[in-house]
Amino acid sequence: MTPRVLVTGASGFIGAPAAAALASRGAEVHAIVIEPDGVVPGAQSHVVDLFDEAAVGIVLDRIRPEYLLHLAWYVEHGRFWTAPQNLAWAARTGTLVRQFATAGGRRVVGVGTCAEYGKAEGTCSESATPIAPTTIYGQAKAAAWFLMQATAGVAGIESAWVRVFHLFGPGEARARMVPSIVLPLLAGAPAACRSGAHVRDLIDVADLGDALAAITLSTTTGAINVGSGTSVQLGDVARRLAVLCGREDLLTVEEGGASLGDPRVLVPDLDRLQREVGWRSPVPLDARLAEVVDWWTSARQAKVET
Amino acid sequence: MTPRVLVTGASGFIGAPAAAALASRGAEVHAIVIEPDGVVPGAQSHVVDLFDEAAVGIVLDRIRPEYLLHLAWYVEHGRFWTAPQNLAWAARTGTLVRQFATAGGRRVVGVGTCAEYGKAEGTCSESATPIAPTTIYGQAKAAAWFLMQATAGVAGIESAWVRVFHLFGPGEARARMVPSIVLPLLAGAPAACRSGAHVRDLIDVADLGDALAAITLSTTTGAINVGSGTSVQLGDVARRLAVLCGREDLLTVEEGGASLGDPRVLVPDLDRLQREVGWRSPVPLDARLAEVVDWWTSARQAKVET
Repeated sequence: MTPRVLVTGASGFIGAPAAAALASRGAEVHAIVIEPDGVVPGAQSHVVDLFDEAAVGIVLDRIRPEYLLHLAWYVEHGRFWTAPQNLAWAARTGTLVRQFATAGGRRVVGVGTCAEYGKAEGTCSESATPIAPTTIYGQAKAAAWFLMQATAGVAGIESAWVRVFHLFGPGEARARMVPSIVLPLLAGAPAACRSGAHVRDLIDVADLGDALAAITLSTTTGAINVGSGTSVQLGDVARRLAVLCGREDLLTVEEGGASLGDPRVLVPDLDRLQREVGWRSPVPLDARLAEVVDWWTSARQAKVET
Repeated sequence: MTPRVLVTGASGFIGAPAAAALASRGAEVHAIVIEPDGVVPGAQSHVVDLFDEAAVGIVLDRIRPEYLLHLAWYVEHGRFWTAPQNLAWAARTGTLVRQFATAGGRRVVGVGTCAEYGKAEGTCSESATPIAPTTIYGQAKAAAWFLMQATAGVAGIESAWVRVFHLFGPGEARARMVPSIVLPLLAGAPAACRSGAHVRDLIDVADLGDALAAITLSTTTGAINVGSGTSVQLGDVARRLAVLCGREDLLTVEEGGASLGDPRVLVPDLDRLQREVGWRSPVPLDARLAEVVDWWTSARQAKVET
């Protein structure tokens, strides 16, 4: 039987590779997109505003998905940490799960964040690290998870919640770490890594999409951390990017200080992901960094040429 | 300045003593009650369905409370653990906080449960014990707290969340521990305590009401465990109740087994309550047990006489 999966936020940064990974794993993928041109490769698109409950109900009744991968959220870079839209998304997550279950759904997977662990540092475990978010985004994501879990419990369906740590990939916001180093270096300008001693688990968005697909089609429930399993000092990542750009001479790496919410070490315990879901990152980090430098190089050339 | 406090669920088991304690601490207390005869001593009653947002908005605009003590929830004994009503109460908690802040409110206090700690055992700490509820009630309460915290954060007001552990008091549901021992003994029938070796922190509802009033009028934010500070073996409590009833001969105490969600020891870390709020139980547990036996004796006599 082909699993039928509905993906929300499917045209987004995480959603597009997740939908592609679901398709390549043999799923029939349906994508909810808000814009008519939000075409998602490998998926059938349904244009609907997720906050329009009646319209969503009609789409659900037509598709009757068995799986829901709910990725849609307010993600405007720099604003999402404090935006009031977080509240509406948290509440809507609960009612969406109820609608999905009513339409015959049987497993829902949502996406959370290491920000739910708040001031934690070191290795965060789903079972041992307290949920104590200190940001509105983290609090709203925690609320969404407990609403999802309770709603799924009432409806008698499965639920899982993926906590994403640190992410990079083609086309991410230019203020984020990888493009903030790669783009100046490609332009022959100096670049700085200001938290060079910080240790993080970096995962490429294509790998995250594949992990989300694997989790969606698994039977593992509850909170599940996701990462590549490669913990690296950000200074080493920056130096690798500089080598790939051929401009080690233009890079400055500062050690950087640790602060609340930005600790020296923040990485996921991946035991559940690796043992219960059975997923491990298929591509080494260095290869993903080389790919993303190629991508930014092409994007820059395309821009220069036009 | 007299603090102006709105209490939801004010005619309930916890709400009535909380409203009385707020009044005795000098607050102007407004009570939201759903039934016209829900008179709350020491408070001005407002009859309104909390799920009627427009009606609640009108009441808020009239009262303009500075403080909100939000106690209302679905509490039907035996049913509340799994009831779908938990979902509606969680979602409504978020929108109520938004309405309260819009009407000029500046501090909201909600009430949660040790069930938010899930399978935890031993001494539960607000900062160190994971939030991992295994019941729909616990999940919905956790969702309500994170929604409350995020909504208060967006609005720029204070929020606190009181985690209640084990409670007894006059008029509690007869299937609960204290009446399940006292009522048979008073009637000359045998009674059994089936978890005699279990250690819990028992708090009388009048003391809980006073703690809630103290927390409401304090400036302490975040999650706060509440208890009497007296950890007791339930077998010892049962034996004390039997002595008070004069029927030690009719009591059987079994040691009882521990299980997930019902561990041998489950008590609150009260450091925040005692040091930050400055609240300690003013009445020894033995005195509260004597009072509650007197109350059940009177209630029984009143029933026998009518």
